Amino acid sequence: MTPVLILMGSQSDWPVMQAAAQMLEDLQVPWQAKVVSAHRTPDLLQTTMEQAEKDGVPAVIAGAGGAAHLPGMLAAFTTIPVLGVPVPSKQLKGLDSLLSIVQMPKGVAVGTLAIGAAGAANAGLLAAQMIGTTQPEVRERVQQFRQAQREKVMANADLELPE
Amino acid sequence: MTPVLILMGSQSDWPVMQAAAQMLEDLQVPWQAKVVSAHRTPDLLQTTMEQAEKDGVPAVIAGAGGAAHLPGMLAAFTTIPVLGVPVPSKQLKGLDSLLSIVQMPKGVAVGTLAIGAAGAANAGLLAAQMIGTTQPEVRERVQQFRQAQREKVMANADLELPE
Amino acid sequence: MTPVLILMGSQSDWPVMQAAAQMLEDLQVPWQAKVVSAHRTPDLLQTTMEQAEKDGVPAVIAGAGGAAHLPGMLAAFTTIPVLGVPVPSKQLKGLDSLLSIVQMPKGVAVGTLAIGAAGAANAGLLAAQMIGTTQPEVRERVQQFRQAQREKVMANADLELPE
Amino acid sequence: MTPVLILMGSQSDWPVMQAAAQMLEDLQVPWQAKVVSAHRTPDLLQTTMEQAEKDGVPAVIAGAGGAAHLPGMLAAFTTIPVLGVPVPSKQLKGLDSLLSIVQMPKGVAVGTLAIGAAGAANAGLLAAQMIGTTQPEVRERVQQFRQAQREKVMANADLELPE
Amino acid sequence: MTPVLILMGSQSDWPVMQAAAQMLEDLQVPWQAKVVSAHRTPDLLQTTMEQAEKDGVPAVIAGAGGAAHLPGMLAAFTTIPVLGVPVPSKQLKGLDSLLSIVQMPKGVAVGTLAIGAAGAANAGLLAAQMIGTTQPEVRERVQQFRQAQREKVMANADLELPE
Amino acid sequence: MTPVLILMGSQSDWPVMQAAAQMLEDLQVPWQAKVVSAHRTPDLLQTTMEQAEKDGVPAVIAGAGGAAHLPGMLAAFTTIPVLGVPVPSKQLKGLDSLLSIVQMPKGVAVGTLAIGAAGAANAGLLAAQMIGTTQPEVRERVQQFRQAQREKVMANADLELPE
Amino acid sequence: MTPVLILMGSQSDWPVMQAAAQMLEDLQVPWQAKVVSAHRTPDLLQTTMEQAEKDGVPAVIAGAGGAAHLPGMLAAFTTIPVLGVPVPSKQLKGLDSLLSIVQMPKGVAVGTLAIGAAGAANAGLLAAQMIGTTQPEVRERVQQFRQAQREKVMANADLELPE
Amino acid sequence: MTPVLILMGSQSDWPVMQAAAQMLEDLQVPWQAKVVSAHRTPDLLQTTMEQAEKDGVPAVIAGAGGAAHLPGMLAAFTTIPVLGVPVPSKQLKGLDSLLSIVQMPKGVAVGTLAIGAAGAANAGLLAAQMIGTTQPEVRERVQQFRQAQREKVMANADLELPE
Repeated sequence: MTPVLILMGSQSDWPVMQAAAQMLEDLQVPWQAKVVSAHRTPDLLQTTMEQAEKDGVPAVIAGAGGAAHLPGMLAAFTTIPVLGVPVPSKQLKGLDSLLSIVQMPKGVAVGTLAIGAAGAANAGLLAAQMIGTTQPEVRERVQQFRQAQREKVMANADLELPE
Repeated sequence: MTPVLILMGSQSDWPVMQAAAQMLEDLQVPWQAKVVSAHRTPDLLQTTMEQAEKDGVPAVIAGAGGAAHLPGMLAAFTTIPVLGVPVPSKQLKGLDSLLSIVQMPKGVAVGTLAIGAAGAANAGLLAAQMIGTTQPEVRERVQQFRQAQREKVMANADLELPE
Repeated sequence: MTPVLILMGSQSDWPVMQAAAQMLEDLQVPWQAKVVSAHRTPDLLQTTMEQAEKDGVPAVIAGAGGAAHLPGMLAAFTTIPVLGVPVPSKQLKGLDSLLSIVQMPKGVAVGTLAIGAAGAANAGLLAAQMIGTTQPEVRERVQQFRQAQREKVMANADLELPE
Repeated sequence: MTPVLILMGSQSDWPVMQAAAQMLEDLQVPWQAKVVSAHRTPDLLQTTMEQAEKDGVPAVIAGAGGAAHLPGMLAAFTTIPVLGVPVPSKQLKGLDSLLSIVQMPKGVAVGTLAIGAAGAANAGLLAAQMIGTTQPEVRERVQQFRQAQREKVMANADLELPE
Repeated sequence: MTPVLILMGSQSDWPVMQAAAQMLEDLQVPWQAKVVSAHRTPDLLQTTMEQAEKDGVPAVIAGAGGAAHLPGMLAAFTTIPVLGVPVPSKQLKGLDSLLSIVQMPKGVAVGTLAIGAAGAANAGLLAAQMIGTTQPEVRERVQQFRQAQREKVMANADLELPE
Repeated sequence: MTPVLILMGSQSDWPVMQAAAQMLEDLQVPWQAKVVSAHRTPDLLQTTMEQAEKDGVPAVIAGAGGAAHLPGMLAAFTTIPVLGVPVPSKQLKGLDSLLSIVQMPKGVAVGTLAIGAAGAANAGLLAAQMIGTTQPEVRERVQQFRQAQREKVMANADLELPE
Repeated sequence: MTPVLILMGSQSDWPVMQAAAQMLEDLQVPWQAKVVSAHRTPDLLQTTMEQAEKDGVPAVIAGAGGAAHLPGMLAAFTTIPVLGVPVPSKQLKGLDSLLSIVQMPKGVAVGTLAIGAAGAANAGLLAAQMIGTTQPEVRERVQQFRQAQREKVMANADLELPE
Repeated sequence: MTPVLILMGSQSDWPVMQAAAQMLEDLQVPWQAKVVSAHRTPDLLQTTMEQAEKDGVPAVIAGAGGAAHLPGMLAAFTTIPVLGVPVPSKQLKGLDSLLSIVQMPKGVAVGTLAIGAAGAANAGLLAAQMIGTTQPEVRERVQQFRQAQREKVMANADLELPE
């Protein structure tokens, strides 16, 4: 299986984006993570996506913050499904990142997840779900993950006031 | 091919959500559209998703407005990838819909598109891209769509002031 | 008296939601607190509400953060009054939680309180006020609580600049 | 049964707030609607609430827009449960109304509904649900209303593209 | 000269509101500060304002946070000019306080200052400016304050990079 | 009595700002209205304020929209109290105007009113209240205005559903 | 003089962006306007900027709406100064466009103007000001424009209430 | 070469604004930094800009926070291009600063950068780009800076999960 490609605009996004890698790791879906900056290495966007198409990459996960152009620009250069993760920004807390990623015009789509590490983890999960639509063993692992978190909730359901 | 399932919380969402159906239609991907309300028919969520899993539905597109719970609740009942479309709300213009759909907690994912009809169309497009990762003829039609819109831009690129 | 049911999406919401329990405790209204996740245990929503109706639960208090679907989904499965508490989210500070809870469509209602622990305490208070409409001794305890906080304000009303 | 009291800051709020009256009317719960302005008739707040307590009013529904102080101030003068409806404002579309109503400090609670007529209708519904906790015939009518809207959704569930 | 009256909803607002007192102190304008809560001591609003009118209070400065009703309700009970200070709230940082104070309906006015201590200081300053329109010695002290801060800026105008 | 000075950034603000003039007119307080643009006639700010001080203007009302700098800049050039009115902007509906006016730094104050015509009317009212602190006949007219609007509310307090 | 290059993401942006062209026209600065879409013609971004550098284009004005990536991506491919104009979006009124354009990371800059036609006009004006720093006749025309608008304000400064 | 002029409303803005100076320093473009307050030294705005015009200043960079009037007021007094930097504010995190700077009316332009130090650095960069349009050695240094940051990204592109 060709790895899911996790791209981000800056190495400083990795603490957030590694939640995507960890989720894929847990679901035994191969992944590869790289820094590609929409603004600082714009010429790499097209070549990276062309290579990904050749390699048969099943999904691209892209994270960026502020005027977050990476997910949308990658989507513009490929027909591989692109999932976008709004990385929290220092001042506006990722509201700018979210709007910059999700509000794409008709014709180029980015499936956007929540701001921050939860969104990154869910990007990994959704990529696995997408792969799972044709690979039953991946779908099964997603179902097991779901079942496990269901049981975790139920095992600790009762709450009491601290004394 | 099992149709992509387009669900929405209310018939009044159809003018927005039909852009998803139209996009799938244009890309020759079969689809089926239904009203299932998270709040008014909550018991149908689980059965609808169980049936969809049995039928082999490749992707679910769900649109809702305001406190938009439909996409997230459908995602909670299935491992089929769920794409969410924030339907514009009367007062807050869909900002509430967007946040209600995209800000999912870790463990249940919704790939969220833009507010309104552009987002609905892109949900159809992204579903087709997902299917296209294993069905080359769908991927090819997506590429043709992309090429067509590229040419449309280039054919009308020059602009002049009105006299 | 059947206890007021306090539900929340995650154990991590308890530090906020225990303010509801504490308020009910102070007003001598019985309560019970549990984790039920709209997204991780969606099948429990309906059964939990059916049991609550059988038990004669007078009010449900539900807290959740981010794409906060729990209060609205519980309300969809019962006619017991549901009060919603927006739990602060990490990045958007609970604005997403608030909009996800309060902006319910016509036909399924959630009485929403303020973001955070103050809102949770007030959910407990409002539940007691609701019970107090038919149980005079509860109403009286609410009035005493009100009187006590009135006196607390008045006892420390004068302010001076620190030297 | 003493009527539910529907109060609003201005006669111009009535087109929004009458949805509360209509919902109560449909559920055969008696109601009475009046203009009491927090800012223009502030001295009436206390007397109105004192009279309501004497009359045995089971719930107060209060709507206001902008710096919407009416629901919170009524709640300050009574222990009858107060439900607040944010009336849309001209410029900020009711976001100001919502925050002014919902963000109450600990100790005085307002159960807040959605911005606009949907919220007003739901205030009526929630008041009926509260009354229904001790009056089975009201609870039953709420259940019938729920069932009716469920059936309405299901009767028109299938959607097709316009030709 | 009758003191300017500084009122706030809670003793916890004093760290913010004492900037108003300090500014008045610096400008040698007498002041008095008290806690009066719109929600916890609503019956004191009217009597406090009636007493203030009798005493000849020249201006009221009122601070509150969240659903900040104090300034507007005081203004409803008096024709003494009321200046409002939005106290920062824990989650929404005072945006809720600001909108709750400034968005008053036509007919009852609150002159609103900035969120937080800067706004409180400016409320003191504006009160002094108002008094200064008929008391030349107060106006003069305001002018001296202005001149002093002008000189302070000019004395430290040049900036260099740290080595 | 020297007229209250009503200034605005553009003639297009007059439909909003004339509500200030009308309120002063109704309260028999003299006024004068002029266009002075912070951005297009910046050199007039200082001279206009110097003249106003010489004339003994009791209050300045300033309205502006978008990056609304007029009220704050006028306040910087005078110690006459300045009241600011956020004029609604085309896209952001006056939220930009509001923040540009109200968020003044410590040391230069603008008493800010609500966005739009209601805020403009209240600026006129507050100016009259300020004048009324030393001119009893103005205070009395404000009290009569208040009484009149109180009676207007009470005369039409009862509401019924349209048939 | 090589024309200023005005680029936009879609022909539908032209009604907004032509204000930039008109301003340059009025200031007798040559301009050329074209559609280049960041998302639909991403491969043209680099070649367009390379050609512009060869031609000696003095400034690029770029407008886009929603997830507005065009200005930032053009800036990534050139060292010609890029000015960005947020085109109003249907639902969020250009707040998304603004944040997507202005919140650029360190290292690639876009000088951003106001949302809508006023911002487009000012982009033209700022481009002319930039050219004017080395071309005195352009600077002079900017000064004349400024003087003209100053006189226009002063000629219509006095305002009266309509009868 | 006449230095680029970096102005800010308060010495407390220097930690943010020095990023502009540092960028210019790195690009070997001379600069000078000063405090000029729109509100506390308003009379210096005009004289500072007149002197800057005489000196041949090629660009003005202005930073301010909250009701940030400095960039727009400087722009009103000169035809030198003005770049604005929104300094983060304590409560609203610079959203107020951003809107106060960017939403300028037609006729007076400020090229606005991102909130905070990244925006300040980019203001320095954009000023250098503007100078570079006529001074090839500056353009070359900008290109080298761009190339250097491109290489920095590429040298550390691969990412791995921490063990």
